[in-house]
Amino acid sequence: MAEMNRPRVGVIGLGSMGMGMAQSLLRSGFDTWGCDLRAEARQTFEAAGGQVVSAPDEMAAQIDVVMIVVVNAEQTRDVLFGAHGIAAGLAPGSVVIACATCAPEAVAALGDDLAERGLLLLDAPISGGSVKAAQGALTVMASGPAEVFSKVENVLDAVAAKVYRLGEKPGQGAQVKLVNQLLAGVHIAAAAEAMAYGIRGGCDPQTLYDVITQSAGNSWMFENRVPHILAGDYTPHSAVDIFVKDLGLVFDTAHRDKFPLPLTAQALTMFTQASAQGYGREDDAAVVKIFPGVALPDRAANDSAEEG
Amino acid sequence: MAEMNRPRVGVIGLGSMGMGMAQSLLRSGFDTWGCDLRAEARQTFEAAGGQVVSAPDEMAAQIDVVMIVVVNAEQTRDVLFGAHGIAAGLAPGSVVIACATCAPEAVAALGDDLAERGLLLLDAPISGGSVKAAQGALTVMASGPAEVFSKVENVLDAVAAKVYRLGEKPGQGAQVKLVNQLLAGVHIAAAAEAMAYGIRGGCDPQTLYDVITQSAGNSWMFENRVPHILAGDYTPHSAVDIFVKDLGLVFDTAHRDKFPLPLTAQALTMFTQASAQGYGREDDAAVVKIFPGVALPDRAANDSAEEG
Repeated sequence: MAEMNRPRVGVIGLGSMGMGMAQSLLRSGFDTWGCDLRAEARQTFEAAGGQVVSAPDEMAAQIDVVMIVVVNAEQTRDVLFGAHGIAAGLAPGSVVIACATCAPEAVAALGDDLAERGLLLLDAPISGGSVKAAQGALTVMASGPAEVFSKVENVLDAVAAKVYRLGEKPGQGAQVKLVNQLLAGVHIAAAAEAMAYGIRGGCDPQTLYDVITQSAGNSWMFENRVPHILAGDYTPHSAVDIFVKDLGLVFDTAHRDKFPLPLTAQALTMFTQASAQGYGREDDAAVVKIFPGVALPDRAANDSAEEG
Repeated sequence: MAEMNRPRVGVIGLGSMGMGMAQSLLRSGFDTWGCDLRAEARQTFEAAGGQVVSAPDEMAAQIDVVMIVVVNAEQTRDVLFGAHGIAAGLAPGSVVIACATCAPEAVAALGDDLAERGLLLLDAPISGGSVKAAQGALTVMASGPAEVFSKVENVLDAVAAKVYRLGEKPGQGAQVKLVNQLLAGVHIAAAAEAMAYGIRGGCDPQTLYDVITQSAGNSWMFENRVPHILAGDYTPHSAVDIFVKDLGLVFDTAHRDKFPLPLTAQALTMFTQASAQGYGREDDAAVVKIFPGVALPDRAANDSAEEG
């Protein structure tokens, strides 16, 4: 802990986001440990110069800060407090940075449970996608006490282009992240609905994209995801099932408070339908495939057009 | 018609869009006539240097090109073919530029009816709002034969920053405009839902705006309309009832073809609910008021904060 100016960092979860973050930390000169169940992910990180373990508790004594980059609150609790959880082995005063998209209440409860063991929590969900993760250019929507921020400021700077400080309490970052996910999910589904409607109405898909991106109907997601539809390429950057999860979480938090979210509910149904039709692991733009009788651009046609 | 290099132009409908367009034509040196039932609108345009009439047929002999800037296809037909319609008095070869948001089929039918009288149609719905209309900087989503475009190229340039040529057939412009309105309407409703959810969850509204506009949840409409919510100012730039109309039109065109538009249907219900609650003539951002139990920013509070 004497090294808090340049803490030793562990990253749990070397998926498309965590791997980029762990490698960004290495590039910034941090002594960095990576943890993942998958041997392939460990090998990739080791080849990049990182140190690796297959279970969280194995690196507890080697690190001062742990970033948890898993998919939800349940997994976050498991890597902290489960059979191989890291919390028991961390020195008091160590910082846990929770990056998964979680319900605000779940994050607040996590903070209480960590405090009981003398550990500190930063609520720090991330946004930006795997490309920005690899560049160390994520957006972090963080909340926590000022003294926790100051302990990990240089760690956050290594992975993020922009760190928002959204309050003193864990859960405030999570709440803003959920608002972002609500909009992101609804906008992807709206982009799909608009393209399906326009193509069915005889519009040329590329022309539609060109006009809408210059008009009041544009969104960040329309601009980013519709090119996947135009190319007929549904290789997952972020999968349909991620929005089944995230919009489900948004919907559940509101439903518990008896608060209506009509568009969220509808978009959640659309992603769920796409998943049920077998597109869960395709790129989230594949939600366009739920619209029947639409002549979507075809990947093979695009490829041969490029060759011709 | 000898003056087609600089045709004489009539604008029917001097509302927030038509007035700006008519004044832009004047500024560009066109001999411009304006038509509106409201004496106040005629006086404003006359003061700006325009010539005015109160019924469309009164200016038929004075113009070569007529821009129709009314709210829908029904009104467009009425000013052309109704009791005081202009079509009967226009010289053969005159051009009708139809700017209202209409169903593609309605525009195609209009083209056929005009052709029977030797008149030409340009399908030319507009986008950009009243500020850009006043600046002569609209976006026009146009379709029609090349010879019609060439006859009115300088007229369009006087009112628009960007003219898209979307095909040879009237109706193709209308179709693209409907896709844009689908997205615009859904995005306004989504912005309202997201802000209501976030504020209810304890987020600071201004912080939420700052974070989202820098994140993947952003849209053109979120960025443009949420400031009205933050200021508690629902002075109409574009009213709730405009989206009751436009999303209704989008929904109807799809419903007739038995094509599902789940988000459009939901957003239409939200705007309709806002209208039924008495907010139809307020700014479309007032759709946020349908969410109960949300402490929205208050205009009076904002005003006194500025004074204090």
